[in-house]
Amino acid sequence: MKANIRDVAREANVSMSTVSRVMNKNYPVKEETKIRVEKAVEKLNFSPNTLARSLICQNTKTIGILVPSIDNLFFPTVIKAIEYELRINGYSIYLCDTADNASEEIKYIRSLTGRQVDGIIVIDPKTENMRSGFYEMVGKDIPLVSINGYNKDIDCNFVLNDEANGARQAMEYLLKLGHENIIFVRGKESYSYDIKENVYIKFMEENKLTVQKKIIDVGEGNSYDTVDGTMNIMRKELANLKAPIAVFSCNDLMALGVLNACKKMNLDVPNEVSIIGFDNICISSIVEPKLTTVDQNMYLLGENAAKMLLELIDNNNQKVNRIKLSTKLIIRDSCSNI
Amino acid sequence: MKANIRDVAREANVSMSTVSRVMNKNYPVKEETKIRVEKAVEKLNFSPNTLARSLICQNTKTIGILVPSIDNLFFPTVIKAIEYELRINGYSIYLCDTADNASEEIKYIRSLTGRQVDGIIVIDPKTENMRSGFYEMVGKDIPLVSINGYNKDIDCNFVLNDEANGARQAMEYLLKLGHENIIFVRGKESYSYDIKENVYIKFMEENKLTVQKKIIDVGEGNSYDTVDGTMNIMRKELANLKAPIAVFSCNDLMALGVLNACKKMNLDVPNEVSIIGFDNICISSIVEPKLTTVDQNMYLLGENAAKMLLELIDNNNQKVNRIKLSTKLIIRDSCSNI
Repeated sequence: MKANIRDVAREANVSMSTVSRVMNKNYPVKEETKIRVEKAVEKLNFSPNTLARSLICQNTKTIGILVPSIDNLFFPTVIKAIEYELRINGYSIYLCDTADNASEEIKYIRSLTGRQVDGIIVIDPKTENMRSGFYEMVGKDIPLVSINGYNKDIDCNFVLNDEANGARQAMEYLLKLGHENIIFVRGKESYSYDIKENVYIKFMEENKLTVQKKIIDVGEGNSYDTVDGTMNIMRKELANLKAPIAVFSCNDLMALGVLNACKKMNLDVPNEVSIIGFDNICISSIVEPKLTTVDQNMYLLGENAAKMLLELIDNNNQKVNRIKLSTKLIIRDSCSNI
Repeated sequence: MKANIRDVAREANVSMSTVSRVMNKNYPVKEETKIRVEKAVEKLNFSPNTLARSLICQNTKTIGILVPSIDNLFFPTVIKAIEYELRINGYSIYLCDTADNASEEIKYIRSLTGRQVDGIIVIDPKTENMRSGFYEMVGKDIPLVSINGYNKDIDCNFVLNDEANGARQAMEYLLKLGHENIIFVRGKESYSYDIKENVYIKFMEENKLTVQKKIIDVGEGNSYDTVDGTMNIMRKELANLKAPIAVFSCNDLMALGVLNACKKMNLDVPNEVSIIGFDNICISSIVEPKLTTVDQNMYLLGENAAKMLLELIDNNNQKVNRIKLSTKLIIRDSCSNI
């Protein structure tokens, strides 16, 4: 049977209100008494009923997090940062895996508001739910922060990366190394790939490299299958080209696919083929050679979103914020100069 | 302002009890009325107060999950399985990242029982909390399942893998390929590495290969740094040996370190060095060559733990269960016969 506050009081030989004072730390209690209560708490494995407290205080000290897939190389780090930041501020998190499905997002949001969460963080929300105004509506009732999924027409709190700037740094680095034959590798429809492609096209035009421009779409761009998919496509593409070649990939999974294609074809990386990825997922630094890539600030995205949410809770959800984090090229071993 | 049940009733032009019947699906309601209520619910973005219901029903439909680090290649898949299995049964999950710290585990468990969770799943619990009887005590008050962390002296519900059997399959496979110089690579103190080492030693003795026996401890065995750490150690070790060599590594991170060492030394994998990993983390199938490894059933561990927990909740925590899952060698491209 679970211990209640009465059991603790009896064990520590104090009144129930003294136990309550020690637990809530809201009134001074003699050190000796405090230690006695704490020992009783430990011995009986007592924990106060947070639930009853929540109904009275009108806050639950819980936050809901929506994520398209927890089983991914990008999101766990974001969630880790959120969890840490919220925990040290006394919050627990509900984790919701939406399977990247728009109607699941809506179902989860309903369930979370039913559970009276104090706020919600949604990672990579579905474009349709953003565009339909769903998140804007939810955000009026309850503090809500979106990581990525930015839409300038929607009145919502956002934390996002400056992907365009990261893409430009990658292109400038390749040009500085003397590369002109720069291939751009992307996946099928995605706002994020579009941003990078625009930078690529503009950059090639600015530098009078339109003849060398080459865009390869590998289809599904964000699953483990992307690696093999990209490898198979790149084996054909690279067979028709003459080294030195440079490849700028929209993410590290594609970059790894390019790297594996080169291995299969006995093309030396970086001496014959230079490769840049994007995201800086863990894998990028443990393959051989280590990938040069653009850091997507995974931890910072989560940390900033959590801090923004706590501020919204404190300020009664009074303002709308946007934070754009700068991205940074991480130079490792997969590029060389000509 | 958030809509309440009164607003929904007014919008749908029905009584509040009709709204309640539609939401709880506990009394028949005319189809036409049901649709009207559902439209009102959607329009006003209404969600019923689960919290108040929880205090009345004595269950919260929430489960706590403790994990040493969510930012790891092993745990997200386990959590994904748990989340899915619990969600389809109407439960939400509290995610708790303990930073692999024993006192954080205890703090989290206290917080979860305070939040009146209906059950707890703890992944890779700290040995000291298992040994001290802490989890046994908690498990008497509340349904609790431990994934791994098995201790035969502790009366606790466990889901675990048959690691010894997986290790034996790996060794038998290498022997069948003709290997006799089989190196064993492990990390510092861990119950799991010990199990595999015992199998290795026994196997080498059984096959009269004690002269060839070689055990290498790479220290910290389960972080991304393990890859480079193992690589550096293996470069020295491999330099003194003559191919063909086989390496059985306690996990895929170490196996990747061995693979990278071979690349740096221009040793061909699998023709000069055969490598087997353990775990079957995503990375093992996207490096080149793809790693032969032992599947750790990450998804199945989570799924079985969730199902076991739901059964414990249904049966008032009446029995103590143990499930040991069989492991399986996954043959890919990193081993060859002599």
